[in-house]
Amino acid sequence: MTAMRALSRDRCLALLASVPVGRVVFSLRALPAIRPVNHLVDGNTIVIRSNLGGALASTATQIGPLVVAYEADTFDLAGHTGWTVVVTGAARLILDGERQARYERLLQPWTDEPMNCVIGIDCDLVTGYELVGVVA
Amino acid sequence: MTAMRALSRDRCLALLASVPVGRVVFSLRALPAIRPVNHLVDGNTIVIRSNLGGALASTATQIGPLVVAYEADTFDLAGHTGWTVVVTGAARLILDGERQARYERLLQPWTDEPMNCVIGIDCDLVTGYELVGVVA
Repeated sequence: MTAMRALSRDRCLALLASVPVGRVVFSLRALPAIRPVNHLVDGNTIVIRSNLGGALASTATQIGPLVVAYEADTFDLAGHTGWTVVVTGAARLILDGERQARYERLLQPWTDEPMNCVIGIDCDLVTGYELVGVVA
Repeated sequence: MTAMRALSRDRCLALLASVPVGRVVFSLRALPAIRPVNHLVDGNTIVIRSNLGGALASTATQIGPLVVAYEADTFDLAGHTGWTVVVTGAARLILDGERQARYERLLQPWTDEPMNCVIGIDCDLVTGYELVGVVA
């Protein structure tokens, strides 16, 4: 049996930065949507590249930014141990040319799909758990 | 470089059934929420155990069932290959005693957290992609 233990914010962000891939979660046409993407963590911002821009743009007329969740995890399927981190925060298109170019250099898409947007997700709410083995 | 190729519904469900863990995506207090869980696939239904029941119950007064997304993936981080499957559909508490008991036998939670609900997710909309290596 495995116990769930809450992780500190710093530990969550360190774990997130330790893996290249996570999943961005948002609403699209009032339905829950999720897409795996690769990311980097820059201070208090998760940076992804995506054609998600359409979803962001379609919400541009709403009051306030689009709020998304971003999740990463690693599990040992045999041992039933691992960790999961979820960040919830505002997603913003990064339009500053210099910053955009820097992130485009640092973060290469895995696929040949067009990834026309660089998106920053604010780490507003950070939660995470580790699953640790306990003696039954 | 890697190309994305769409997968058939049958292939998506076979891949989903080939792994023990995925992520359920839903709305909680108007925010996107995501939780990793273990699952089994029974025909056209994904079965999970969760204390998500609260989120389901809180939406019991809405018109129609809660619609969730369920995602699983496997990536080769070195080769940038892998697959991702997303199922979108209605989530329902399984309250039939016999079915509930059968799923509770077949699907053991990984943690010692209370998992008071057995939930079935209808495979209404099934999409998936594989990332395959291509010669640049």
